Amino acid sequence: MVDMLKYSPDSKVLGLVGGTHGLFDKQAVELTPELCAAYKGTGGLELLGRTVDRIKSRQEMENAANACKELGLTGLILVGGARTNTDAAYMAEYFKQQQLGTTVVGVPCGIEGSMVNEFVEASMGFDSSSKAMSQLVGNTAVDGASARKYFYFLRIMDGFNHGGKIPTSHVALEVALQTCPNMLLLTEDVDERRQSLREVVRDIADMVVRRSKDGKNFGTVLVAEGLLAAIPEFRSLITELEAMLMPCPVEEVLEQLTHWSRALFQSLPEFLQKQMLLERQSNAALSLAHLETERLLAALVEEELKQRKKAGNFSGSFSPVCQFLGYQARCSMPSDFDSDYAYALGVTATLLAANGKTGYMAVVSDLSMPVPQWRIGGVPFTAMMKVPPSIPGETYRSRPAIFPRRVDLEGSAFKSWVEMRQECEELELYKNPGPIQFSGKCAARVSITIASTFKYMDELRQLQSNLASVRSMCRPGCDPRKVRVATTSLATLTEILKELTEPLNASPALERANR
Amino acid sequence: MVDMLKYSPDSKVLGLVGGTHGLFDKQAVELTPELCAAYKGTGGLELLGRTVDRIKSRQEMENAANACKELGLTGLILVGGARTNTDAAYMAEYFKQQQLGTTVVGVPCGIEGSMVNEFVEASMGFDSSSKAMSQLVGNTAVDGASARKYFYFLRIMDGFNHGGKIPTSHVALEVALQTCPNMLLLTEDVDERRQSLREVVRDIADMVVRRSKDGKNFGTVLVAEGLLAAIPEFRSLITELEAMLMPCPVEEVLEQLTHWSRALFQSLPEFLQKQMLLERQSNAALSLAHLETERLLAALVEEELKQRKKAGNFSGSFSPVCQFLGYQARCSMPSDFDSDYAYALGVTATLLAANGKTGYMAVVSDLSMPVPQWRIGGVPFTAMMKVPPSIPGETYRSRPAIFPRRVDLEGSAFKSWVEMRQECEELELYKNPGPIQFSGKCAARVSITIASTFKYMDELRQLQSNLASVRSMCRPGCDPRKVRVATTSLATLTEILKELTEPLNASPALERANR
Repeated sequence: MVDMLKYSPDSKVLGLVGGTHGLFDKQAVELTPELCAAYKGTGGLELLGRTVDRIKSRQEMENAANACKELGLTGLILVGGARTNTDAAYMAEYFKQQQLGTTVVGVPCGIEGSMVNEFVEASMGFDSSSKAMSQLVGNTAVDGASARKYFYFLRIMDGFNHGGKIPTSHVALEVALQTCPNMLLLTEDVDERRQSLREVVRDIADMVVRRSKDGKNFGTVLVAEGLLAAIPEFRSLITELEAMLMPCPVEEVLEQLTHWSRALFQSLPEFLQKQMLLERQSNAALSLAHLETERLLAALVEEELKQRKKAGNFSGSFSPVCQFLGYQARCSMPSDFDSDYAYALGVTATLLAANGKTGYMAVVSDLSMPVPQWRIGGVPFTAMMKVPPSIPGETYRSRPAIFPRRVDLEGSAFKSWVEMRQECEELELYKNPGPIQFSGKCAARVSITIASTFKYMDELRQLQSNLASVRSMCRPGCDPRKVRVATTSLATLTEILKELTEPLNASPALERANR
Repeated sequence: MVDMLKYSPDSKVLGLVGGTHGLFDKQAVELTPELCAAYKGTGGLELLGRTVDRIKSRQEMENAANACKELGLTGLILVGGARTNTDAAYMAEYFKQQQLGTTVVGVPCGIEGSMVNEFVEASMGFDSSSKAMSQLVGNTAVDGASARKYFYFLRIMDGFNHGGKIPTSHVALEVALQTCPNMLLLTEDVDERRQSLREVVRDIADMVVRRSKDGKNFGTVLVAEGLLAAIPEFRSLITELEAMLMPCPVEEVLEQLTHWSRALFQSLPEFLQKQMLLERQSNAALSLAHLETERLLAALVEEELKQRKKAGNFSGSFSPVCQFLGYQARCSMPSDFDSDYAYALGVTATLLAANGKTGYMAVVSDLSMPVPQWRIGGVPFTAMMKVPPSIPGETYRSRPAIFPRRVDLEGSAFKSWVEMRQECEELELYKNPGPIQFSGKCAARVSITIASTFKYMDELRQLQSNLASVRSMCRPGCDPRKVRVATTSLATLTEILKELTEPLNASPALERANR
């Protein structure tokens, strides 16, 4: 954005310090080329900070509008995931209603990689963080195969809890594809199969027993951060806990829980009970980052294996080592891909905002191609918004929103994991992608998840070039048969497209016959 | 070693699987160029595995000698730290006594970087692991400055417990120099100052309070793995616990402890009590890797800050996040430095072993220079062995051994930390060295610790060139005055060197006078 100032030397770029706080308090710093140069190519958000707060209430909207007026902003660019961009959509609408001149543009960002959809191919930061985590998982798996005595349970920082929805696990999937661990516990997969905690534990124990029979008392298990939220009994417990004010003493919590949830809560190890009662973030959601799911699983598997040992079904050893991979990776130096992508998004957002386009998301397409072939554009937020299904018993009506995209269990990324997971479990197919490289031929590598997404802009471009060639082939003076074929074909196509978008009505012919 | 086969095509290189186990069981695989190619440039020890066991008893020595005979080994190369190389020294002696033809050569290796001395400039693996950990600490510190709400307590895998000695913390120091965290708790430093746990906790709390006054409720604290063993009261407790057979129920342990140690043990949080009673490695030493020192410190600091808050001396917030950095980093892909160093050591060890040199350590010197200027050589183990001071009350006589080198608190590496630590505490001088690079100009960077060590081979070479030039300047036919000056100077020098090495006797002149 700052580099774009050379095309408009009288303009200024302001950075709002601490996200929404900076906006409401009008705490802004001018971003100069000199200031930005000091932070160029570094990870994290040290320069401006961040916030998880939302802009939701009428009062907050007014505050935001006033701040934009006072700061004299012609455009406001919000960088974040599905929640931030939903806010951006409503702000754009509100600003328009208030006839405020500030345009609002969104930029898809977030290491969890869930701010993607048909239009957005990647979320800024996903590539770097998943590569940084792949390096760590690769190192750890090799360590396991060297020491041959530890079972590593690695929890991967990933999509977080979002209004009762199942968290996403794009990072865990990408890391598994890059490193080939012995097991991957994917939130979406566990949810799809409606597995209980007991079943998950049994699956892991089965794997340990099978490997132990080959003399392999070691292995690496990846656990997606949001796993517990996908397990039905835990989801109920979490929902009940989220309705309470925290911190709260255990006795009071127990009183307020339903019978089932109370039994589950009491069956949990003490460390997990404590972690579930920690103070909440501003959105009242229980932070899954603070639940040591990997320790819970390791403890339960250990118990299960003790039972099997007693029953004579297991004779190996089991030493779990638990790790949470997140804070060490999410502020990693950005990969070349992310640096380029962020730069392209910054340029796109600036162009949209400066040209009066409000309520748009900046998008860059064809990301698996070399950078010069990338295409930039803007997509209206409304195209990405969906009305959430109403929850039975809820009194308020859900409003349309942009939702985090879950891992597609029918998609090519997950399917390639399914194809190899049997082999990964038995053997040590561990791959270590190594540290992120900034030069050499590995520097240009793009995440498998990003390389395998649908390319909207590419398809749109092909459509437009087809339309253009029909137009040029049917210019005045052309063969009348061409005109007739083209006209009837296009009429049919229009009919089909109409049917795809409009509600299903009785056909006009049938209606007439019924009269 | 395998590449050296081209100079001796009839030779073979055998790899012993699982360290000492492979040797005793004669489980060896032939290392061919094809097999090695598959593992080239990868970290860890996946190909051959490893062991922490020692070769110590007479019976084990005999087993080793028999295995060498049966496998027809002309040379045996042991790769490891101070303990492994001490074993190598005694094996070399035993093999010589038994008139066994197998030469024994040592290679200095270990991520903790303590197998260094006047002759050995670096331990293989230290550069890679300290760089990998620096990346993680750098990422985490930046994350702290972005989120501005967590205090990270990062424990760094480092030197381990070694027969009652204080563990080393070369890795923690190197990482601190690379990343500039807000605080570094160095084992050697805490030991030197004879700090109690209470004092360490107070120091951290003071830092938290000071930063909080500037509105900075975040920071990064590095904790060396061996810290607890440097704290006098803990050292007693650890020594007492190491004398007991583990696992053992808490009640029995309490009975056997002295009063002081019992009080300390009971004052510890439950998680740490459990971790201190875990099953031991084969050397009976309590594994400091399993003690969550960082959690202990965070919990005690939290308690201390609560007290200060009540007393009105602290008004900030304190959210600690604890991490152990080790398993993710110790099997990292090796840095270019370590790849080159390992290659040079392999060549050196092969040359020594093949040329009948037994009881030598392979050394490569001038490591801070570009690779073509490195110098290789062998140093007899005896030059590195020391007789440990006898411990009061011990019944057995300690035998000479090679000891891990501790961080030199007067050395230039630690001194440069002392110079900046005040500023690091107050400000956010965080540096992120980024991931290890294999190309580009950062690839050739060497750890500060290695770059700042004494260069023995270099000094030896200078001495030899000086001797040679004296010899050539004083060839027969030269000016007699030159001969006289050289002779008296050398006689004086000889006298001085004698005085430095021989016990201090009364001077001959004085002796004569006394008669």
